[in-house]
Amino acid sequence: MVSLTDGQKATLSPEAAAYLTNIHHVPFASFLSPLLTSSSRIPRLRQGYQQKMGPAETELIEKHHLRMTDIVVAGVPVTVIEPPSIKPEEQQKALFNVFGGAFVMGSPRDRAALTMAAELSVRVYSVGYTKSPEAKYPVARDQCLAVYRELLRLGPPGLAPLDPANLYAMGCSSGAQLLVSMLLVAQREGLPMPTAGLYLCAPALDLSGAGDSMASNQHDRDLMPVSLLIGMVSQNYAPGGVDPRDPLYSPIYADYGPSFPPTIVTVGTRDFALSHGVRFYWKLRQAGARVELLVSEGMWHGFNWDPVIPEALQVRAAVIEFLEGPKAAGNNLLP
Amino acid sequence: MVSLTDGQKATLSPEAAAYLTNIHHVPFASFLSPLLTSSSRIPRLRQGYQQKMGPAETELIEKHHLRMTDIVVAGVPVTVIEPPSIKPEEQQKALFNVFGGAFVMGSPRDRAALTMAAELSVRVYSVGYTKSPEAKYPVARDQCLAVYRELLRLGPPGLAPLDPANLYAMGCSSGAQLLVSMLLVAQREGLPMPTAGLYLCAPALDLSGAGDSMASNQHDRDLMPVSLLIGMVSQNYAPGGVDPRDPLYSPIYADYGPSFPPTIVTVGTRDFALSHGVRFYWKLRQAGARVELLVSEGMWHGFNWDPVIPEALQVRAAVIEFLEGPKAAGNNLLP
Repeated sequence: MVSLTDGQKATLSPEAAAYLTNIHHVPFASFLSPLLTSSSRIPRLRQGYQQKMGPAETELIEKHHLRMTDIVVAGVPVTVIEPPSIKPEEQQKALFNVFGGAFVMGSPRDRAALTMAAELSVRVYSVGYTKSPEAKYPVARDQCLAVYRELLRLGPPGLAPLDPANLYAMGCSSGAQLLVSMLLVAQREGLPMPTAGLYLCAPALDLSGAGDSMASNQHDRDLMPVSLLIGMVSQNYAPGGVDPRDPLYSPIYADYGPSFPPTIVTVGTRDFALSHGVRFYWKLRQAGARVELLVSEGMWHGFNWDPVIPEALQVRAAVIEFLEGPKAAGNNLLP
Repeated sequence: MVSLTDGQKATLSPEAAAYLTNIHHVPFASFLSPLLTSSSRIPRLRQGYQQKMGPAETELIEKHHLRMTDIVVAGVPVTVIEPPSIKPEEQQKALFNVFGGAFVMGSPRDRAALTMAAELSVRVYSVGYTKSPEAKYPVARDQCLAVYRELLRLGPPGLAPLDPANLYAMGCSSGAQLLVSMLLVAQREGLPMPTAGLYLCAPALDLSGAGDSMASNQHDRDLMPVSLLIGMVSQNYAPGGVDPRDPLYSPIYADYGPSFPPTIVTVGTRDFALSHGVRFYWKLRQAGARVELLVSEGMWHGFNWDPVIPEALQVRAAVIEFLEGPKAAGNNLLP
């Protein structure tokens, strides 16, 4: 059970309170984590996750009449998600997406990718990187980079190269680690940044375990005990001998400058990633980049993608306002 | 003791970690709260608080060569704090301040007022309202309103009326409740708003006890157990029969519009008021007002006013950037 007092319920929507009430944690998670998250258990975890998420994904595809196409870019599978009609001013825009799932679960056609295709009304290129334990760091990051490089240089099969000025990028949870690490390497390589805007949802940017919320939200507050997440990452994704504070492995420790893309970060107060978001906000702000942090009351890791919870609808609208901001301002200048 | 893991220490400055390590809570606070916070105990609480804060206040006055003047406005004592030299473009500016201290402690010449006089470089009018239990709600709020009204209509003794367009306002903790409640009443009365900007530091805007952080940060995370704060307020400030969700008593429940002054809110992740700040941010944003929320990693209630902790210096600089923003932009237009 997740702890939820009357005073905490009072500041949540009834939908959010009902959601939290229905969360049941594995008992003795801290103790059992090494067993529950060992590589041999991952197929079962994935299956459970996909069984839970699959129907919601199908529903989103149908509801928004999304067109799904599987392509291969730089040898990596990529899912292209297209809304049925794209506004003329959005035709040149695209969203580069790196899905989340603690590096071991999840899919490029997850709720995040589908929801953003529909609500931001853009074509989404969602990288089907190799999960762990089949691949360890930095394989998935380098696959994302190979896709990014080819989309910018050659373009998607049969299309013109993507224009970085019209490119958004999104990473959720572990996907944010992959995406930010990828952008850091891309910058070193001289590749342009996706300057239309970066969206980091509940980003996991510090794999060292540091941070206030990694302790305060570790047990009975968030969707899942932190011990399980740490087990999944350490037993499946982390390569032997990695320094957990390596700035490409835990991008919170990297240096940033004012040329980093405009970034919006979302977290919730129950989210284990609250401190990741807070710290990255200050890091980018101090670097002179444009950054906005949205913190949602009583919300858990990844709440953003719920189709009906009002807090999720609210934050999604705010994110889209940030991402579309310059365009909306530009439109006002039209006669 | 306040709980502090190695992973939590790792994302704090050494100064902040040392500060948290030195916090010792009253044992059995939840149980003893009714006794420890009864009206008969308030004189001793005030004395202890003033003994702790007095030296720091004196030091700030000396360090910044602040000129302190006691005046009376609308029958209410007001402390005027003036930095030794005010930049020409700041001469017309002033800051209306309502100090915090759970309604029972504190002083109009506290660190917040002194620090802002020096760092924002403006004249501060800090209201010496009557604390509780000597006065219960809404006496202090109405004293603040009387001062505000007279400063705008007649001006400080011997000076011209204050220009609301050049007026900042600040309220910390309980001072934010008094200030926002006062602004709501002032708005109904047709008084102009302090449109230079509003600064709410760790605001206590919901006296009903609701909110995620009121539970998550209640025991061993913040400066003081929440049970003591609740005892101080309920036993000394709350009038008999008050509805804790009355929108003037708990201003988070009031309605706001786009004409509310541009507002910056600061909280920390250990702060019991984290949820107050988060909720008020969304409330003002949905109302169409300009609002910014700054959340600081691992920081406690009122950390902002520490003279050396880097996190405090960082957030103060960001607040001043917000408050001076329009002016700085204006200056850029000068030849």
